[in-house]
Amino acid sequence: MLYVVGIGPGGLDMMTYQAREAIEAAEVIVGYKTYTHLVKELVGDKPVIKTGMCKEIERCQTALELAQSGKTVAIISSGDSGVYGMAGLILEMVTKQKWDVEVKVIPGMTASIAAGSVLGAPLMHDFCHISLSDLLTPWELIEKRIINAAEADFVICFYNPRSRGREGHLKRAFELMAPFKNPNTPVGIVKEAGRRKEEKWIMPFEEMDFELVDMRTLVVVGNQSTYFDQGMMITPRGYSL
Amino acid sequence: MLYVVGIGPGGLDMMTYQAREAIEAAEVIVGYKTYTHLVKELVGDKPVIKTGMCKEIERCQTALELAQSGKTVAIISSGDSGVYGMAGLILEMVTKQKWDVEVKVIPGMTASIAAGSVLGAPLMHDFCHISLSDLLTPWELIEKRIINAAEADFVICFYNPRSRGREGHLKRAFELMAPFKNPNTPVGIVKEAGRRKEEKWIMPFEEMDFELVDMRTLVVVGNQSTYFDQGMMITPRGYSL
Repeated sequence: MLYVVGIGPGGLDMMTYQAREAIEAAEVIVGYKTYTHLVKELVGDKPVIKTGMCKEIERCQTALELAQSGKTVAIISSGDSGVYGMAGLILEMVTKQKWDVEVKVIPGMTASIAAGSVLGAPLMHDFCHISLSDLLTPWELIEKRIINAAEADFVICFYNPRSRGREGHLKRAFELMAPFKNPNTPVGIVKEAGRRKEEKWIMPFEEMDFELVDMRTLVVVGNQSTYFDQGMMITPRGYSL
Repeated sequence: MLYVVGIGPGGLDMMTYQAREAIEAAEVIVGYKTYTHLVKELVGDKPVIKTGMCKEIERCQTALELAQSGKTVAIISSGDSGVYGMAGLILEMVTKQKWDVEVKVIPGMTASIAAGSVLGAPLMHDFCHISLSDLLTPWELIEKRIINAAEADFVICFYNPRSRGREGHLKRAFELMAPFKNPNTPVGIVKEAGRRKEEKWIMPFEEMDFELVDMRTLVVVGNQSTYFDQGMMITPRGYSL
């Protein structure tokens, strides 16, 4: 049995009961080294196989081999396993290669939802997720999605907003959104949402501080109705008060 | 203290620890009647104030009054409290009216994430949420969002896909998406995700069965790469296998 577990943003309090149970039921844990650290109090003395960044295929292969050999295995993703996580690759390998493994996807709280609660209530109306990583996606398609989402006034959550080799992507995204965004549109920045070192900032679109953003950060850009008050970023649902 | 709690899709196993703790800490629970039922085993003998559909403002007012009078209150939303839930309205009332209440937003697993895990891994690439309810949003804006999202090849999750008075909205949404969608694009339908009566269907875009959909259903329309195999709907992240 292979559990593909979304552990949520990191703290145990934002983990679901079934995620915890899957990790407790597993005989072996497989994950990216930063994330295995987040669940170490659940793991105890069990073997943990840690792999580095960009080793996703090897990581999934290891998990599938262990599960096929009869072990109960949990491969973990931060956030939700099904949102830019390991569930897709595991199920791609199961459907395209010859594996005899039973897989169960255990969902978790993805970063946008966790960050939204930290900021207030920015995701109360239609919103979208865009990853700014072009490792696996053509940059032209990412640009098209940014423009279309801004034009249709979605609240936009940027995943992977910055990392080595793509310092300029978020700035370019803001240039693309600028024709559609009021300069005062609130932008929320949450670093390490749901973890001990959590930090947040809310600022107007035109004053965006790109230097605050790193790979562990989620950026939320409001829609035309989103406002900032009492330290919170709020997108009205449309009720008349 | 007022906790605005996202209880997840319904079953306790998809609830987070902090959501459970907030409900246990509360002296009074406030919620829409269907949702208070879902958490009754956590609530025990505590008073539960249930209100009907479309009574959101009254519900929030009741919760704020109780909290202002000194009670510890939990107002609950199914899914995430911040995604088409109660967090936005509560924080709007707090910022626009004179309430002296401390509010804490407790996020939960929203329907798209829960439904995604039931279907396989359809949300592995950029995706968006669109509510088809035009009670609070002009239908023209909803149409624009559908068109822009389909043109930019987002995976699209439809909330509130059907209810009395808007039987035709989902069908119209499919007409709007049709120019951009391959007829074989998988569409996932999940009814009551994460609850005992959970049901799912996956079918090609051109064979969409609108009769399966009701208000407790989430509809996920894939992108150009999404495929159906072994009973699962999978959107590749882009790795070369």
